[in-house]
Parts: sequence; C-alpha cells; structure tokens
Amino acid sequence: LSEKRTDRECLVNGEVSEWVHHTDRGFTYGDGLFESFAVEQGRPRFWQAHMDRLKRGCDTLGIEMPPQELLLRDTRTAAAGQSRCVVRITLTRGVGGRGYTPPEDTKATRVVSAHPWPEGLDTLGRNGVRARTCELRLALQPALGGIKHLNRLEQVLAAREMQAHPGLEGILLNQEGFVISGLHANLFIVVDNTLLTPRMDRCGVRGILRGLLLRDFKSRVELRRLHPAMLGEADEVFLCSALRGIVPVTAIDEHEWRIGKVTREMQEWFEARKAAT
Amino acid sequence: LSEKRTDRECLVNGEVSEWVHHTDRGFTYGDGLFESFAVEQGRPRFWQAHMDRLKRGCDTLGIEMPPQELLLRDTRTAAAGQSRCVVRITLTRGVGGRGYTPPEDTKATRVVSAHPWPEGLDTLGRNGVRARTCELRLALQPALGGIKHLNRLEQVLAAREMQAHPGLEGILLNQEGFVISGLHANLFIVVDNTLLTPRMDRCGVRGILRGLLLRDFKSRVELRRLHPAMLGEADEVFLCSALRGIVPVTAIDEHEWRIGKVTREMQEWFEARKAAT
Repeated sequence: LSEKRTDRECLVNGEVSEWVHHTDRGFTYGDGLFESFAVEQGRPRFWQAHMDRLKRGCDTLGIEMPPQELLLRDTRTAAAGQSRCVVRITLTRGVGGRGYTPPEDTKATRVVSAHPWPEGLDTLGRNGVRARTCELRLALQPALGGIKHLNRLEQVLAAREMQAHPGLEGILLNQEGFVISGLHANLFIVVDNTLLTPRMDRCGVRGILRGLLLRDFKSRVELRRLHPAMLGEADEVFLCSALRGIVPVTAIDEHEWRIGKVTREMQEWFEARKAAT
Repeated sequence: LSEKRTDRECLVNGEVSEWVHHTDRGFTYGDGLFESFAVEQGRPRFWQAHMDRLKRGCDTLGIEMPPQELLLRDTRTAAAGQSRCVVRITLTRGVGGRGYTPPEDTKATRVVSAHPWPEGLDTLGRNGVRARTCELRLALQPALGGIKHLNRLEQVLAAREMQAHPGLEGILLNQEGFVISGLHANLFIVVDNTLLTPRMDRCGVRGILRGLLLRDFKSRVELRRLHPAMLGEADEVFLCSALRGIVPVTAIDEHEWRIGKVTREMQEWFEARKAAT
C-alpha cells in the first residue's frame, strides 16, 4: 500500500511518472514556470490566485496553459491520502530538440508532484526570523518581471551564500541597490501604519499572498522603491508567502525590530483568508 | 540495428537513457550548465576549450565537475557511427528535492546527447547573414556573466521575437543599450583593421571561438563597449561560434556591409584552427 502511495506522488502529463525527457525545454533552457502551494485535506490553498499567476506567466512566455481542471485533478491525485503537503506544478514549453527557437508543434509538459510539509514552517510566524542582506544582486529584466519562471540561478546562488549563515533568511537587493524581497517570500515594511512594498516589474516574483494583501488592504499599501536606509525608519518588517504565511522579521543586518501589532494583525488576516479560500 | 543506434544517442550519467528525474535541479531551477559542439569522425572540435569553460561554470555555480575522461567517453559513445553530429553536454547540480538551497550530498547529473548536424550551417559562412536588433535587452548579472548556464529564457524570448523575421539573425543589446552579441554567436566589428568585441562580464556567453580569436589575434583585438552607433563606423561585421565558424554579417537594421577581407582572413584562420585542434 505504501508503495502505491509513493507511486501516485508525481504525475507527468497526467500519468504516474517521475521522469521528464532530456530534450524537455524545462531541462534544456529553464523554459517554463512553476507554482508551489499548500494542499490541506485535498484542498489546494489560494488555488485561483496560483492559476491566475500561472496564466500570466504562460502569456508572457507564449506557452499554452492547460485547462485548470486538469491541473486540479493532477493536484488532487498527487496529494491523495495526505492530510497536508506541498504540491509543485511545473509547466514547461514541452519537448523540443536543440536550439532556442521553440518548435511549432510543441505541447506544454506538466509535472505535478506532492512533497512532505516542510518542518519548522509553522513556527516561523510565531517567533519571526532574523535576516541578512545577500551579496548577490538581482538583475533587472522587465520582460520576465514578476512571473514565477524556471530560471532561478540567482536564487540558488543567494541560497548558497546563505548556507554560511544558518537560520538567517536572505534579503535580496536589485542591481541598483534597492530592497526587493526575501529569498523565499515578499517583503513589507510598516511606516506609520502604512505598508510599503516594492514593485515586481523588473525583478522578483509577484507573490500570491502579496497580491491578496494588495487587494484587501488597498488603502494602506503603497508600492515604493525601498532604499536599504528606509529599514532604519520602519516600525515593523514582515515577509509574506502563500506557504509560510506572514513571518515577522526581527532583524536585517544591523537593524532590529520587535514583532509589532500590524504584523500580528496581518497574521490574523492570513488565518481568516486561508480558511475562507 | 537502427534502433540500437538511436538507443546510444543519449547517456544520462553514463547509462543509455533519455530521461531525467523531475526533481533534477536542471529541471526545477535551471541549476546547471551546457556545452554544444561539433563531433567529426569521433573527434570533438575544440574539446579542451569547451572543458575549460565548463569548469569555469562549475566553479561559479559550485558544481563538482566530473572527470573529463568520463565526458569524453560519453561523447564518443553518443556520437558513435555518425560522421558528423552536434553533441550537447548538460551538467546539472543533481537531483535535489524542493527549495533553492542545494542539498549537501547531491551529485552532478551529466547528460550527453548526439543530435543531427543542422541543415544550412555550412552555407552561412559563404553568403553571410542579415541581422536585426532584438527588442529584448539582456539583463546585467555579473555573478553569471560569461558562463553557459541553463537559465536561457532571455534567449528563448529573443528567438520567439525573431520568428516574425525568418532568415534574419537576432542581435542582442543589454539593458544599457550596448551591443552584446548575436543570439547564437559572439559578435565582432572591424574598424581600421582592428577587431572590436564586447566584454562578457555582466551578460552574454564567453564563446569558445571568441576565446580562441582573443588568444590568436591578441594584438589586433580590443574589448570595448559597443554602442549601436558604432555599427555605422564598422568596415566589416562578423559573428563567430565554435559550431558555425566565422559568419559574415551583411546587414544589421539599416546598416549594410559587403563581406570584407578581414572576415575572409578569419574564415581561413578558422578552417586551419579547426583542422589543428
């Protein structure tokens, strides 16, 4: 029985499989997109928001989005029998020979896999994290800004850098020196009860929870360039991710904060949002 | 027999296979490198130069380079029985779960595959190509500058753009508006018998043939920022690639050139270089 369970944990194009072709453009060029999300009791969290971002990514790259029903069916099959897990959907342009030019007749590859719930994810919100600015600076590429594509070497290099600082979260600046996000989550700073967060139009990922925050707290959020010096003026700082929720930041480099009331308010909002979706 | 032939055309970690695991970091994050080169009568062209670039890429990304002898053996096996083909070596950080942080114990994945010799490659040098500036601008990322990594979405987007202009080669500028390279090759302009070519320290790929040119014509080559306006002052323009050789450029946007004597001289050099390596 347990073997059967393992067998169902990954689907490639709807079939039980763990293998992708070596000419798949996801493998040869990182030519694709992905989404990772929580599935609890068979219910994918913030499903429609993930599908909307995936669709925007498909439009940007010119990949045909498979029907959502197919992705939902695959997700349920991969997560079946698990009370809580993380599902990753990877969508590539498909199998496609050698050369940057996409073949005319290629069909998107979809890989849907279930992964164990990460340890320690639930305590992040309670205690917060200490963070540190990465030396790696994100490049500016408006053509790819905001989408969750498979070209993630910058994040891998930043994560390698952070291996020397266990337990700290990485904070990413762009090539111009402005604060963009955490390595695994978007970033907000609170100044006089206003929530400030950077635009994701030239680098970074438009996070799912960030999007919901922008929608639900429209009048309190401002999109801003965040110079690192502005951290000194912040009353509170938090990270947000659909998977991790609202994570208080208690330190970035020399700056320190207590966990504040706006952060706690956002955590309550997250719990309610999560339950409602 | 022909089936057997096909079976040998791809090796994954030295074993005949066409499949990579869905958690391979090449697939999940584009976390790896590649090299493509000509193999003629079992002899890989410019082998050592390709190995040197691959090693530099491994050092940059922190991937352990497999022994060259293994890669050479795989290359010969994949290309066996073909008078001329293109071999691609893909080297990834290995199989590695979910998350940007590389696992401690991962072992690099190597995929070595043989592909048919591309049609039309041999006539490019004779007649030259007309080219056009792509709208996509390369992002500046010094941490990845020059290496041939698997994050190639920029090139895919530029190639998609060029599908509207069949027969034309794409010319890539960076975000600052300087000329960097062709979509498939490095670029040189000739001004008063001096060869000018851009640095590859913030974007672009340090091409194999570019490297050999810089070595063999040290006193005649200058590394320069190339403003597009400088195309107006160029006597000749050519592209160079280890696979395609020296390809005369007869037009970029509104600029036009005849195929000049320096370009022809470089073509003779290439033929001799190719035979000697």
